[in-house]
Amino acid sequence: MSLLEEALESIQPVDGDIEARARAHLDDLTKPRGSLGRLEDIAVRYCLATGTAEPKLGKKMIFTFAGDHGVADEGVSAYPKEVTPQMVRNMLAGGAAVNVLAKHAGAESRVVDIGVDDPLEDAPGLVRKKVRSGAANIARGPAMSVEEATRAVEVGIELAREAADQGVTLVGAGDMGIANTTPSAAMFAALLPCDPESITGRGTGIDDATLAHKVEVVRRALEVNRDALGEPLGALAAVGGLEIAGIAGVVLGAASRRVPAVVDGFISSAGALAACRLCDRAKGYLFFSHRSAESGHRAFFERFGAEPMLDLGMRLGEGTGAALAMSLIEAAVKVYNGMATFSSAGVSDRAS
Amino acid sequence: MSLLEEALESIQPVDGDIEARARAHLDDLTKPRGSLGRLEDIAVRYCLATGTAEPKLGKKMIFTFAGDHGVADEGVSAYPKEVTPQMVRNMLAGGAAVNVLAKHAGAESRVVDIGVDDPLEDAPGLVRKKVRSGAANIARGPAMSVEEATRAVEVGIELAREAADQGVTLVGAGDMGIANTTPSAAMFAALLPCDPESITGRGTGIDDATLAHKVEVVRRALEVNRDALGEPLGALAAVGGLEIAGIAGVVLGAASRRVPAVVDGFISSAGALAACRLCDRAKGYLFFSHRSAESGHRAFFERFGAEPMLDLGMRLGEGTGAALAMSLIEAAVKVYNGMATFSSAGVSDRAS
Repeated sequence: MSLLEEALESIQPVDGDIEARARAHLDDLTKPRGSLGRLEDIAVRYCLATGTAEPKLGKKMIFTFAGDHGVADEGVSAYPKEVTPQMVRNMLAGGAAVNVLAKHAGAESRVVDIGVDDPLEDAPGLVRKKVRSGAANIARGPAMSVEEATRAVEVGIELAREAADQGVTLVGAGDMGIANTTPSAAMFAALLPCDPESITGRGTGIDDATLAHKVEVVRRALEVNRDALGEPLGALAAVGGLEIAGIAGVVLGAASRRVPAVVDGFISSAGALAACRLCDRAKGYLFFSHRSAESGHRAFFERFGAEPMLDLGMRLGEGTGAALAMSLIEAAVKVYNGMATFSSAGVSDRAS
Repeated sequence: MSLLEEALESIQPVDGDIEARARAHLDDLTKPRGSLGRLEDIAVRYCLATGTAEPKLGKKMIFTFAGDHGVADEGVSAYPKEVTPQMVRNMLAGGAAVNVLAKHAGAESRVVDIGVDDPLEDAPGLVRKKVRSGAANIARGPAMSVEEATRAVEVGIELAREAADQGVTLVGAGDMGIANTTPSAAMFAALLPCDPESITGRGTGIDDATLAHKVEVVRRALEVNRDALGEPLGALAAVGGLEIAGIAGVVLGAASRRVPAVVDGFISSAGALAACRLCDRAKGYLFFSHRSAESGHRAFFERFGAEPMLDLGMRLGEGTGAALAMSLIEAAVKVYNGMATFSSAGVSDRAS
């Protein structure tokens, strides 16, 4: 049995009994029942994922997976491809938004080269897991082989499990890869499924003409790869990307160890969707951090049936939304563990 | 000149030149322009309020103002009035939600007795600023005299200024007071203005019949006090509450010292509205933390013209939403100050 198969088999369904116990505990805390709204739901979800009504907070870690995309050659992005390795170096030096926000959230940040089309020599701190030097152009054929996609997913599984072994209890995944909203849109179109037009957006900021062209590129990618889109691993290999596969792997690896995983934005949602199509039980371990300004993200949440925690018009990726959400999740668990009960505090419960 | 008059006069309009400089700085950071969405707007607003494009983060402090309401006798709340002093003691012992969330945000928490109908003897840590023992029943006459309302506002001004003198650069205000959604609804109806039905909600959780009764109580309060509602201080005295006046004072005191103020939920918005009606320049110093589940809060934001940062279905008050928002504001300022620029990091800016 491969690592991927083993991980998929070992993901347990979440236990509804824990939800009842967690809700009862929250109702005993000194506040009107349900008055902390989604903060209470977040605490319950954390309990369900970690498999206990007495949840613990440990370390937090955010993986930013970097990969390149041959489809950048189609002119679908506002930025040149060289920005991927440049931003990897910026992250390693601590100058990117994800560095600042991970630190603010008290999370460790790891930058993973899973498919950058650059050797990235002399890059101290880089987690070197390159599966191939950039995905191929999905508008002309598959992004990678199924073996490569499997390996990229397994990289994510291994990293999430190593983190769990080091005491990480909340893991986040983000992306860096010029042009990667294009394969993400293709992934959504293939796996939700949905029409390319409803899910394709402006990425880092393209104009109307480039957007129309980008929709056509997504359609072409789906057309030339149509025979491979019937199952999730095939879709990942055909129209996905290496960082998208790595993110899917983190979700699966975390879920297989009962570690909740925080999904970042549009690209990370494509990875999370692939993970859930490989094993629908993985969904119970996910927190969707925020609704991206990337227009298709709204359609994703509606079709997939999930509600993000934040809606701040962000569209940067890297794990920036995951970092902000981690702080909210931690707040929810602290409320669950740290508040007084009505009886212990001598506070009267409601009259009725 | 009274303290209140002096504070109102000393509030400066925010300086638009700073916005242009702050936006230019954000555009120079290693991310697509505007890609951090509202996080960028928050950083700009912090710059505008503090009057500099080189913002500093200092201490954070949350004031929870506690007061009672004679209108509780009309049966408008799901909880008995004795809960106000009980919750004050719970907060002083660190067992309330605001304690947990303030600590998570790295903010100091202060509990202020501005009008609890209980002597609160032996309450170590309590900030004793009682103006009167509970507001009178607004359904039968004014909540308090104009002199008492002025004094309650000045308590807030003094506390905010003392905090500023101690190095606080971000102040939050919240409430504790059984039945206080009723005077808050009356304040919105008087000062937005709007129809009582559109703004009155279920508070801590009342049923349909009690809600209909509560709307009638608000109408009666507006009717018996109609001659006093023409100006904001008169409205505060007639249909407000002591904690609402204290919160208004914190907003004014903070603004007069160029300290941004974070508004909590429904009750705090009533206080912030009163502050802005006393001096419309105060609005530039406000962050609205979240949209409460209290139904009228949506109508408030639409009419007042503001957008909350979070929408988590919370309806607890105390300053809990302000605490969560403080962490986001701090994240935004850290991004502003901590990220690398395109030139310093050797990252290519967009192709176009």
